[in-house]
Amino acid sequence: MGLGDPDIGTRNEAGIAAVIGVLRQRLGDRLQTGEALRGQHAHTTTFIPPQLPDAVAFVQSAEEVRTVVRACADHRVPIIPFGTGTSLEGQINAPQGGISIDMSGMARILSVNSEDLDCTVEPGVTRVDLNTHLRDTGLFFPIDPGANASIGGMAATRASGTNAVRYGTMRENVIAVTAVMASGEEIRTAHRARKSSAGYDLTRLMVGSEGTLGVITSVTLRLQGIPQAISGGVCPFPTVEAACNAVVMTIQMGIPVARIELLDGLQMKACNAYSKLDYPEGPALFLEFHGSDAGVAEQAETFDAIARDCGGGPFLWTKEPERRTQLWKARHDAYWAALHLRPGSRAIATDVCVPISRLAECVVATQDDIASAGLIAPIVGHAGDGNFHVSVLIDGDNPAEVAGAKTFISRLNARALAMDGTCTGEHGIGQGKRPYLIEEMGAGIAVMRQIKQALDPHNIMNPGKIFAFDA
Amino acid sequence: MGLGDPDIGTRNEAGIAAVIGVLRQRLGDRLQTGEALRGQHAHTTTFIPPQLPDAVAFVQSAEEVRTVVRACADHRVPIIPFGTGTSLEGQINAPQGGISIDMSGMARILSVNSEDLDCTVEPGVTRVDLNTHLRDTGLFFPIDPGANASIGGMAATRASGTNAVRYGTMRENVIAVTAVMASGEEIRTAHRARKSSAGYDLTRLMVGSEGTLGVITSVTLRLQGIPQAISGGVCPFPTVEAACNAVVMTIQMGIPVARIELLDGLQMKACNAYSKLDYPEGPALFLEFHGSDAGVAEQAETFDAIARDCGGGPFLWTKEPERRTQLWKARHDAYWAALHLRPGSRAIATDVCVPISRLAECVVATQDDIASAGLIAPIVGHAGDGNFHVSVLIDGDNPAEVAGAKTFISRLNARALAMDGTCTGEHGIGQGKRPYLIEEMGAGIAVMRQIKQALDPHNIMNPGKIFAFDA
Repeated sequence: MGLGDPDIGTRNEAGIAAVIGVLRQRLGDRLQTGEALRGQHAHTTTFIPPQLPDAVAFVQSAEEVRTVVRACADHRVPIIPFGTGTSLEGQINAPQGGISIDMSGMARILSVNSEDLDCTVEPGVTRVDLNTHLRDTGLFFPIDPGANASIGGMAATRASGTNAVRYGTMRENVIAVTAVMASGEEIRTAHRARKSSAGYDLTRLMVGSEGTLGVITSVTLRLQGIPQAISGGVCPFPTVEAACNAVVMTIQMGIPVARIELLDGLQMKACNAYSKLDYPEGPALFLEFHGSDAGVAEQAETFDAIARDCGGGPFLWTKEPERRTQLWKARHDAYWAALHLRPGSRAIATDVCVPISRLAECVVATQDDIASAGLIAPIVGHAGDGNFHVSVLIDGDNPAEVAGAKTFISRLNARALAMDGTCTGEHGIGQGKRPYLIEEMGAGIAVMRQIKQALDPHNIMNPGKIFAFDA
Repeated sequence: MGLGDPDIGTRNEAGIAAVIGVLRQRLGDRLQTGEALRGQHAHTTTFIPPQLPDAVAFVQSAEEVRTVVRACADHRVPIIPFGTGTSLEGQINAPQGGISIDMSGMARILSVNSEDLDCTVEPGVTRVDLNTHLRDTGLFFPIDPGANASIGGMAATRASGTNAVRYGTMRENVIAVTAVMASGEEIRTAHRARKSSAGYDLTRLMVGSEGTLGVITSVTLRLQGIPQAISGGVCPFPTVEAACNAVVMTIQMGIPVARIELLDGLQMKACNAYSKLDYPEGPALFLEFHGSDAGVAEQAETFDAIARDCGGGPFLWTKEPERRTQLWKARHDAYWAALHLRPGSRAIATDVCVPISRLAECVVATQDDIASAGLIAPIVGHAGDGNFHVSVLIDGDNPAEVAGAKTFISRLNARALAMDGTCTGEHGIGQGKRPYLIEEMGAGIAVMRQIKQALDPHNIMNPGKIFAFDA
């Protein structure tokens, strides 16, 4: 199987027609088959071509999810869950056609338990909507993958982002989900207690399963108290190694840094140009600290000393909200800034994650690879987790460039795996990373396949994702 | 199936004899069949009678684990992993006989990566041995279930303990395991990166699986920097409600408390008598704070203000190591102290966990139940997680008392489940909690069974645990 090949499986034409008939009757106008709409449900930022579903079902309740799943199960037709469509590895493509189940109509916040620091939401709630809703409670939901993704999609892809170093990923922040499994049965993976040792961890099994085991119908999340104070700033370094050394020391000293992001020189140049800033155009760390007023100042000062020890600095930091917002907006706009390095190009976003002791080595080797391959590809990373992204800017119509980007990504993955890293820190496997997952897991891939086979014997749940079709 | 029934399954006599023959040849003296030794591998603190394995295999390498698993798989004979035997719900019993695989001979620390704050150990390493080994690195492994359990056993049972409120449970602290599955194949569940979104979370599937899916042969753990300063102390409260209110406020304010333990009046009385202390004999919280010198003082003072707001206090705290050690020794000796409340009795230790907003209600209702049932049963809890333990002191030779304890435990579990809690926060399911897991999981139990069936089709891995025999 080639990376990003269209990889079209066998379509069950009769089944698809039958399911569309059934669902049209049950959902009326909320079953849509127009091409433009189907296209919107199959876009992707990878170089994997869009693969359209045959219809999109706009569900409004768990009962309707059961209806869709049962109809698809009866006729052996694929179901592809769709949140906001911001996944990056082809997770929402429909290689065998089937029904895209759009969860945006299930966007109610079902409960907020402020004493327990948790809430339960329908999967279509976006993280921004949730935080807007929480504003008056003194609580917030920390996970921030950049895009305004849906909570269901974030759970399904085990999303994380800039502040996972402090608050963890979706793995640590989902307490329970309800999900309709391939059997059409809805399960609840756990009760609402903060911890449990009651049997297999079905919550963690569903988190990151990318819709291949079931359709998530609600998510119970941990929340955090809004910190009393926040400080943040930018710190230049002479080299990527120096920046990474500062990261390792910060983590080792147990400074509870909320964000620690690495931008390489090219990415800093892009951000300066795009966001009209004037930072030095070398490697830099963007940091944020959460805590008490005294605590965030203490953390920032301790980091400043570390940065100087590592040959970097000065660390310019502030508690002033407006300047912090400007700083983080530049970080969040890094993708758009990168695109402007090569007008008219498209960016192939990929990620890997390595032990932080190997981060500098991996980033430097990747920069060397970029240079020798003649690519334009800025790097930005969640350095505290050893996770970094490369945006490869290509002319998507030039087959040689597409091929060059593909082989670069293969080398990047091999490099990360050789350093005891993973082929994806937060983008998931989808279609694009399937060959690397096989390399990464070795014999473990058989265990994943056995679970998939046991829970979805007819392979109707998002087929062609995580595993190749024969899964 | 009655709670704690011996629940003897079908013994495969011919297979057991054959496996013993094979393993005697392979392991020599390290296969033992003496009754006393087999009895040591089947003791339990529950009222479930010991069920002895037919032999104990003292393995020394992953290769030997594969040998044992393959022999048992060939002959369809049960394998029961054994660490230190400190599990509490019959996890090490051998209801169908078979081979107890004793991991104490696999006790090497394979690597410590101080830059990455992780280490990899064989499963027989105990947590105390690990921390002794780490002493000069500035790092420590925080999970502390009380007993000096093995790391493999702690992973298998998803252990936690007093400082899970700060550092999480084994779920959050195991990065990866290697395990020999029922097929005899060894898998590695993940690479060493701090986070990953690469396929199903096999690590979390193995953590808490209680040996029913495979035998863990190594564990990669997260480590923490030893805090610069520690403060701790005891705070009395007029009522359990007042103490729980203080816990909720502490968590809501985001104070990164390292330990926050609730002892009820009876347990305080027991601790005073046993550990020769003179604390007030009402409900109390034991606390510990980790951080910078300024930080731990700030946290302790903030807590003192909270305690006073809730009608409690004074909070007597110290940074002085000797006094802290004495304090926590009393907490750790709570079990032995409880036994002294009724000389000659045995204690049935059980645990449940509820959302912290329901903790006071659950503890008070349980105290009322204890009083009306005429039991002697002190309560101690990891209050920050909503997890509490009841030690029911009974005359184990008096059937009426045993029956009374059983029905009390049934009511306790029902009460916790009704409050959206779990039937076990940290003891696991083993044999004792199987009926409650069914109640807790509803339709989800079928998913757990499907996974078990897919990965261990002949049910040789620790049969009769988590599920009843027909799993």
